[in-house]
Amino acid sequence: MEKPKLTIDEMAVFCKRKGFVYPSAEIYGGIAGFYDFGHLGVELKNNIKKEWWKTFVQQRDDVVGIDGSIITNPNVWKASGHVDGFTDVIVDCKKCGSRFRGDTLIEDKLKIPTAGMPLDEIAEKLKGHRIKCQKCGSELSEPKKFNLMFSTNVGPVQGSVAYLRPETAQIIFADFKLVQENARLKLPFGIAQIGKSFRNEISPREFLFRMREFEQMELEYFVHPEKQDECIFIEEVSDYELNVLSAEMQKNKKNMGKLTIRQCLSKKIIRTKWHAYWLASMHKWFVELGANPEHFRIRQHVKDELSHYALDTWDLEYEFPFGWRELQGLSNRTDFDLKQHMEHSKADLSLFDEESKKKILPHVICEPSQGVERAFLVFLFDAYSYDKARENVVLRLHPKLAPVKIGIFPLVSNKADVVKKARGVYDELKQRWACTFDLSGSIGRRYARADETGIYATVTIDFESLEDDSVTIRSRDTTEQIRVKISELKDVLTKFMEGEKLGKLGKSVGVK
Amino acid sequence: MEKPKLTIDEMAVFCKRKGFVYPSAEIYGGIAGFYDFGHLGVELKNNIKKEWWKTFVQQRDDVVGIDGSIITNPNVWKASGHVDGFTDVIVDCKKCGSRFRGDTLIEDKLKIPTAGMPLDEIAEKLKGHRIKCQKCGSELSEPKKFNLMFSTNVGPVQGSVAYLRPETAQIIFADFKLVQENARLKLPFGIAQIGKSFRNEISPREFLFRMREFEQMELEYFVHPEKQDECIFIEEVSDYELNVLSAEMQKNKKNMGKLTIRQCLSKKIIRTKWHAYWLASMHKWFVELGANPEHFRIRQHVKDELSHYALDTWDLEYEFPFGWRELQGLSNRTDFDLKQHMEHSKADLSLFDEESKKKILPHVICEPSQGVERAFLVFLFDAYSYDKARENVVLRLHPKLAPVKIGIFPLVSNKADVVKKARGVYDELKQRWACTFDLSGSIGRRYARADETGIYATVTIDFESLEDDSVTIRSRDTTEQIRVKISELKDVLTKFMEGEKLGKLGKSVGVK
Repeated sequence: MEKPKLTIDEMAVFCKRKGFVYPSAEIYGGIAGFYDFGHLGVELKNNIKKEWWKTFVQQRDDVVGIDGSIITNPNVWKASGHVDGFTDVIVDCKKCGSRFRGDTLIEDKLKIPTAGMPLDEIAEKLKGHRIKCQKCGSELSEPKKFNLMFSTNVGPVQGSVAYLRPETAQIIFADFKLVQENARLKLPFGIAQIGKSFRNEISPREFLFRMREFEQMELEYFVHPEKQDECIFIEEVSDYELNVLSAEMQKNKKNMGKLTIRQCLSKKIIRTKWHAYWLASMHKWFVELGANPEHFRIRQHVKDELSHYALDTWDLEYEFPFGWRELQGLSNRTDFDLKQHMEHSKADLSLFDEESKKKILPHVICEPSQGVERAFLVFLFDAYSYDKARENVVLRLHPKLAPVKIGIFPLVSNKADVVKKARGVYDELKQRWACTFDLSGSIGRRYARADETGIYATVTIDFESLEDDSVTIRSRDTTEQIRVKISELKDVLTKFMEGEKLGKLGKSVGVK
Repeated sequence: MEKPKLTIDEMAVFCKRKGFVYPSAEIYGGIAGFYDFGHLGVELKNNIKKEWWKTFVQQRDDVVGIDGSIITNPNVWKASGHVDGFTDVIVDCKKCGSRFRGDTLIEDKLKIPTAGMPLDEIAEKLKGHRIKCQKCGSELSEPKKFNLMFSTNVGPVQGSVAYLRPETAQIIFADFKLVQENARLKLPFGIAQIGKSFRNEISPREFLFRMREFEQMELEYFVHPEKQDECIFIEEVSDYELNVLSAEMQKNKKNMGKLTIRQCLSKKIIRTKWHAYWLASMHKWFVELGANPEHFRIRQHVKDELSHYALDTWDLEYEFPFGWRELQGLSNRTDFDLKQHMEHSKADLSLFDEESKKKILPHVICEPSQGVERAFLVFLFDAYSYDKARENVVLRLHPKLAPVKIGIFPLVSNKADVVKKARGVYDELKQRWACTFDLSGSIGRRYARADETGIYATVTIDFESLEDDSVTIRSRDTTEQIRVKISELKDVLTKFMEGEKLGKLGKSVGVK
């Protein structure tokens, strides 16, 4: 069994061929940076969102969710700084009209980091190093700023500009007080949101990695400004181990090292317990859903990389085929956003502190911000494998994520009583799980198709089933098969889905 | 127990007060037609979507889902007719600048229907009846067409116009062939989608009823063009009864009548079995989730109302406080859309018919199109009741829809061992259900709060629990209470949630 390194383009081909992801409206040539999720992709994406929501919202009594609108009052984006500052620097080719990002041109040519580089320095470097158009070699225009927010007009009157949100976070800040009051939240607490965001990227690329329309799972975790290090959950993750690359290590050109959360805190590599807790919790979420921990690391932003609102940021990174890249950003946003919104809206967003009898403004000690599609890629990359013995792709997705959990196959398609019995089983199982009923092609072909799309278990109904009401269950991962009674099927499948070994759940009848 | 008729404004107040829905970014004055869903609203909305998806996608082997992007190639909207035809007629006040819909002004003044009225007739009627500005009484401008699609620019180049989708349906048509091939679908089959759509309504109104950003649950059901009446599921709904108002009945000024699907078909009131089947199935979905069937009717579009793409349309209507209104539209779209996309994209969207060995273009025999927020309103209106005995609102949402299923309450908050035991119960139950843990205020106050937000069952842990490991379960709907062992709690709650009477599941200990 071997695990080939798929390239991102190969992954895009696989996703299209199997019904996970298509370029949006491909019959019209698509549109750069926009994708449609197919019949399996929508289920995988929904499962990822459901698991995140269950873990970080529903099973926690310190976190509630909201679902804000994509277009909101444009003053939100003035207060947040997006109207003025959410920009990239672009340059045009004077001859062919192609557009480029100024910083990308410099990075490609000079091999130096450009994070935080101001406009005039970019202009100077482009000119100083005589950087030309990458397409036709002609001269480039002066660089200028380009706002990445998509804008539109609301209402029939021209000029009433509004924006498609570039992040879900600000809706949480704008609604902060209403949510806190209605849900009767007491510090420390979090407010989470899953939903679409839009960024008018100049060059969307790497398939689902950098899209113009994407989905976020964001959590703003608020703490008392004077209790920023009192994390009540830290013991849950103290011994948790992960690959760490701090700003200091990057400065000293050191490689990442494997450390426990306890070590990160005692060596003051991670500044607060809360930040450490959320880093570990998010990492753990991926691993518990089947991702390979060796493909992850946490990396601290170096000084120039930090956003204007962030005191400290760590990225949870994943080793994509095109290198280590941000999977999730976890920032300490302080009270920056609530302060901005208080100033711009004149609303009082402070809370009354029962202890000190004073008004306080909470700090966002950590904002884990995860792109759904990046998580989607991670789970696919870590699940994809080519099985030499089977001469077939096997998509080893965690049963909680698999788009279809169970395939129900009548051994033969031309015997009415076998098909009917199989349909009975299907009708029963689909009440509990996402199932598929397949009777076309040889049973081997059907197993192969099931393996390729990640179906966790298959149930085969044959002639013997007509006599003794037993069926065969086959494991996607091991190809092991057991025989069980139909009456026990639901219980056995439940246990198998929860992680028990198939061989322990019934009479083994071999491997195929 | 009485059921007051809430107005839509009162419902909006209730929704804001309890954390269901807020005006988007209200601290900035909101923005007309856009709403944010609060900590309970997001759960109710998610539950509605989950149940719809389970019923119409996951539990059917003739339907698959997709999740297309909001912004897609703009040619999709040229082909569909939206760029040219998705317009309202607007007029401006020449003095104060207010804008109005021409048809609405005519309907208000002349009390005549305006559906399908062409621009020149609207102009003539406005002039002929000297209709003036409703705000200041001044003269109005000539009416003109206004496109309801929100537009934006994609990429850094000005002029590359794209649109926010005004419906999810067209993404299904654009991706039709890829989805059919990948999911190996054979006619008849359906493709479904849930997602946001945007319409730049001139006057958004009636709270969530007419919004500018909203969510749709749409299903396109495709059949063989020569087998348009071969509905294999019709027997499932033949005896299903509903309120019916056909075009004929409207023409003859008759009231709606109660008919079975069988009667609708034998009297040729509904044209095809498929249309009848989907009308009944969608109606049934609401009723099985707790809505009151007496508040529903199906109404056929009269000739002038029909959209350009529709051969026949029936609306599933609900009696809102402001009258009978469309809840869901179910159109026979024929092969209109696939034809349009074939013509504009030059792609072959036909299927090969194994039987006749010919290429065929499927017909959309029925497109049930449901607004999520309208369903949200329906379930809230039908669940809302004021209980005189309790002097309290009780939100009788179906357990599958209730945002929180179970409240876990320690009887007293100042006894550590009671609180600890209660937390143990909470930690156990939250693995399976959305739960809340509440220890503030008297137990009566906590019951009242739970009833108001629709919590289906509450579990109280008291001093007795410390001795014999038993707890009290209380029913939201009847206030009946039973005593059960903690070890049996999960089983009992599962059965209660599935509809069994609480009194049969344990020792009754009265009502309160």
